[in-house]
Amino acid sequence: MSIKIGLFGYGNIAKAVEKDINQYPDMELVAVFTRREPSLIEKESAAPVFSQEKACSMEGKIDVMLMCGSSVSDLPSQSPEMAGYFNIVDCFDTHAKIPGHFNKVNKAALESGKTAIISVGWDPGTFSLNRLLAQVILPRGKSYTFWGKGVSQGHSDAVRRVRGVKDAKQYTIPIDSALEAVRNGENPDFTPRNMHLRECFIVPEEGADKNEIEKTVKNMPNYFKDYDTIVHFISREEFIKNHSTIPHGGFVLRSGTTGEGNKQIIECSLKLDSNPEFTANVMLCYARAAFRLNKDGNIGCKTVFDIPPYLLFNGTQEEMRERLL
Amino acid sequence: MSIKIGLFGYGNIAKAVEKDINQYPDMELVAVFTRREPSLIEKESAAPVFSQEKACSMEGKIDVMLMCGSSVSDLPSQSPEMAGYFNIVDCFDTHAKIPGHFNKVNKAALESGKTAIISVGWDPGTFSLNRLLAQVILPRGKSYTFWGKGVSQGHSDAVRRVRGVKDAKQYTIPIDSALEAVRNGENPDFTPRNMHLRECFIVPEEGADKNEIEKTVKNMPNYFKDYDTIVHFISREEFIKNHSTIPHGGFVLRSGTTGEGNKQIIECSLKLDSNPEFTANVMLCYARAAFRLNKDGNIGCKTVFDIPPYLLFNGTQEEMRERLL
Repeated sequence: MSIKIGLFGYGNIAKAVEKDINQYPDMELVAVFTRREPSLIEKESAAPVFSQEKACSMEGKIDVMLMCGSSVSDLPSQSPEMAGYFNIVDCFDTHAKIPGHFNKVNKAALESGKTAIISVGWDPGTFSLNRLLAQVILPRGKSYTFWGKGVSQGHSDAVRRVRGVKDAKQYTIPIDSALEAVRNGENPDFTPRNMHLRECFIVPEEGADKNEIEKTVKNMPNYFKDYDTIVHFISREEFIKNHSTIPHGGFVLRSGTTGEGNKQIIECSLKLDSNPEFTANVMLCYARAAFRLNKDGNIGCKTVFDIPPYLLFNGTQEEMRERLL
Repeated sequence: MSIKIGLFGYGNIAKAVEKDINQYPDMELVAVFTRREPSLIEKESAAPVFSQEKACSMEGKIDVMLMCGSSVSDLPSQSPEMAGYFNIVDCFDTHAKIPGHFNKVNKAALESGKTAIISVGWDPGTFSLNRLLAQVILPRGKSYTFWGKGVSQGHSDAVRRVRGVKDAKQYTIPIDSALEAVRNGENPDFTPRNMHLRECFIVPEEGADKNEIEKTVKNMPNYFKDYDTIVHFISREEFIKNHSTIPHGGFVLRSGTTGEGNKQIIECSLKLDSNPEFTANVMLCYARAAFRLNKDGNIGCKTVFDIPPYLLFNGTQEEMRERLL
């Protein structure tokens, strides 16, 4: 009997789940819920598409709903709502707002008797696990998270909102010398500018003032002002040819000391050709955990910190100990 | 009220715990148990030393006993025995014998109502967690573990047993080109020789036949025959000066694909100036978890796969979500 997965929202991550769920023999995709008109959706898989309003009526037919909407506009309301009907896994990634989001989802899940795991992906997600482990093992130390090289959706969106910009992609690039200093155990103090470089590829509107665009981007508070930013103007053709994929990745490092000053360095990194496809797989693993927790009566909201790793594995604990320990 | 830690065995790892337990404000070292004559032990900390036979009489005075003996000669009998009296954490690292060890410790702990966590350290231990996570997230892929550069105690011991060898240290060195091939997503198939190089620093007995020693070492089955091995003969002075520390480290990598062939690479690595000090800290974190699990009535034998990460953290789950997620 396989775990019945639903997708709430049909963007990049949902499409990635659709492509990769066949890597998980114990799961099957049973429904996709979109806010668009279902009959207009072009899908590759055979799973039926419904409008999101129909979701509540399918309680009991879906074991875990993967919440694939935007952290800005969708998940803050959708995750608590759906946790009232389903076990859910979401990819809420607005770090500062996680505590509030947790409380809302927790309340809904406790009332409905469901299990919810929020903020699942690679950051927050597997990188969070690495940060926690590294910090507890090396209490006397310093942690660093570098992102990239990869596409930041938030920064790309910010550039696209600038007047005269037709399309844009922003790459976040970790600065090699900063990474090396951390790896050497120098425990440096960094400003944002020291850690990351920002590189933008912009397709301008016809007749747009490129100098003005560049100035506006480079001085944008929060997004670019505190960084060194490189701006390239390119054609629509070049944009489609070279900037259509969504790679990402990053590094979590902790540099600490033990005993009489022995240096100890923990480093974890990801190099992802496709950010949404990786995130989709992480969500599927945690869907397996949510399903099992709920079967055990363990309800309410959880994060990756609450999940014993064996719940992610499709097999017995004996197998796991034999093959992976 | 702090967690009362006992040390069973007084070797490198126990001495490291003694030095570093002050990094953990919620724990205190209350007793050391040695198989030697307690009055002859030179210790730096104020914790009292007892002979190992006295341990059983201290049931109730120690919250978690860290089992610091050898996986070859001590832990197979000591861990099940002590699990009859205490919550324990051990560093049993003979991969092939883990299932049998687990069963013996589990039986003892279930009977006594104690909680035991076995095979805690970095490999097995944190590397095992990385292997599990990487495999579940990228089911279509291949995993690799590289060790080093670092001192292998087992291989150093093997060299010391060769006739004419006074002292020896063996470094396991990962081969850069192999690591790079994995990082590039080439999914290579390796023989042992392709992945690691072995380098030995040997202090010969006076008048020993160096050619004979070198030949014997390089042809030793299991340990060296399947590897390229470099042998250096050095003086006692140079040995003490340059080869007295116990560095280690390694790399866990998984290279997989998602969607239509997008490459996804997960890499975790450790660069440790002191292997025993790092292992000691990992054991202390899991001692915290064992203590808490036992308080919750969760008894029996566990591994790192069974432990929800939040149990490793000295603080509330709210703090953890705010600061580390």
